[in-house]
Amino acid sequence: MPENHHPRLDPIGVFDSGIGGLTVVAALQDLLPSETIFYIGDTARVPYGGKSRRTVERYSIEIGGLLLAEQAKILVVACNTASALAVPRMQDIFKVPVQGVVAPGATAAVMATKNKRIGVIGTRATIASGAYEHAITNRDPETLVCSEACPLLVPLIEEGMFDDPVTDQILKRYLTPLLDQGIDTLVLGCTHYPLLRRAIARITGPGVTLVDSARNCALAVRDLLSSRDLAAPPEHLGRLQVALTDSTEGFLRTAEKALDLQIGDVELRAVQLGE
Amino acid sequence: MPENHHPRLDPIGVFDSGIGGLTVVAALQDLLPSETIFYIGDTARVPYGGKSRRTVERYSIEIGGLLLAEQAKILVVACNTASALAVPRMQDIFKVPVQGVVAPGATAAVMATKNKRIGVIGTRATIASGAYEHAITNRDPETLVCSEACPLLVPLIEEGMFDDPVTDQILKRYLTPLLDQGIDTLVLGCTHYPLLRRAIARITGPGVTLVDSARNCALAVRDLLSSRDLAAPPEHLGRLQVALTDSTEGFLRTAEKALDLQIGDVELRAVQLGE
Repeated sequence: MPENHHPRLDPIGVFDSGIGGLTVVAALQDLLPSETIFYIGDTARVPYGGKSRRTVERYSIEIGGLLLAEQAKILVVACNTASALAVPRMQDIFKVPVQGVVAPGATAAVMATKNKRIGVIGTRATIASGAYEHAITNRDPETLVCSEACPLLVPLIEEGMFDDPVTDQILKRYLTPLLDQGIDTLVLGCTHYPLLRRAIARITGPGVTLVDSARNCALAVRDLLSSRDLAAPPEHLGRLQVALTDSTEGFLRTAEKALDLQIGDVELRAVQLGE
Repeated sequence: MPENHHPRLDPIGVFDSGIGGLTVVAALQDLLPSETIFYIGDTARVPYGGKSRRTVERYSIEIGGLLLAEQAKILVVACNTASALAVPRMQDIFKVPVQGVVAPGATAAVMATKNKRIGVIGTRATIASGAYEHAITNRDPETLVCSEACPLLVPLIEEGMFDDPVTDQILKRYLTPLLDQGIDTLVLGCTHYPLLRRAIARITGPGVTLVDSARNCALAVRDLLSSRDLAAPPEHLGRLQVALTDSTEGFLRTAEKALDLQIGDVELRAVQLGE
């Protein structure tokens, strides 16, 4: 590395099991336009949401390594499942700061609720981990947290069924038990879910505040970069680079359009032995 | 290997991306009770159905290698996506016979149709490969093949939603274009789908014959074993061993029950660098 190299110009490394994490990328670009972002979607092994802790840890560490090979100055785990299961292990292993999406989501929910009843939806693995419950009651022990695993939402989103009677029916099934508990705040505990925000709001009605981690995660990243003198100078113009571990670009283009992102060429990264 | 070892007593190696391939195991046990079966479900990387040819080939070769390490005398690819995309490459690489499920399914469909109009449903990757279309028109060039990718069916099956109004609605959406073409035969081109046979029949009605590859694949395996003098002696009592690449056993127990299989302890197999 040249002597005058300063990590301030290095990229923020962001990853997700697939491309839901682009919702976090959009929030980062919005808040931190000077930062370059290197995004990896582990599409060769998507989804993480039904897999075991050990496997999710292993995958997260591998992808973290690929991002560090790109000189990432910070790792952003833009996947709720990996945030819930793998962030502690990543923090043990890597020297750079590791920011997940669970803590920012929990903070946002605690700030939003008035009646101290918070609902959380996510993948099976995220909900089973109890990570949100733990993070929320850590911040406010008097809060009641009601959780519901919603395993069909990611497939529905990946089919682009954002406004569809079938999606509404399934949402109703998942959300009714939470609404029956009188929640006034709902954490969208999966980075895919903001793409369903409109459909979810149709079911919850205006009395429930929908919280996603993207904006709060971007704020946490800004604070981390600034406290460690790692922020890119304001005159710098950030770029976005995207790599996938398998070359299935279909949903990537849907997400690009839905999130108004500028994604150019997509690189392919190997994550396996023998390549 | 001891000198008196004969591969006749070696196992049939069977694999699937997940546990849908157990439908093929059930058919093999039914037809070939003397054979020992070693089954691997690649649950660490499930599903294959939306992934690229290159990735599916790589995974299939890796799992094939694990089965050969168990002395498999034949490899049965009990996954339509891997059969459609990876069997030719596996046949190039491995010396043992490799039997997929596409060819037996195509044969069964051609034998079943009276009006020469066959529908095929499967994952995105299976349908995009055109493997069934090719195999069917190879057998009878006058047959019209209508295909439909059904990406939501596997998630619905893995949720155990076999008899559910939502599943019926989604099936109606997928099957209506095929029924409009006047098909009299429908290939269940994914090893998960036999678990939805009742729901599918509700939509297609009695005028459409449902064809799955399981029974025909077992017949093809029997012929292969017998022609190569690899069949276990009739007095031998076969066993079933199951290994998964990730330790998520939930759906395995559903399948065990639905298929009336005797699955004992489940082993965990690593498929990745560094383990």
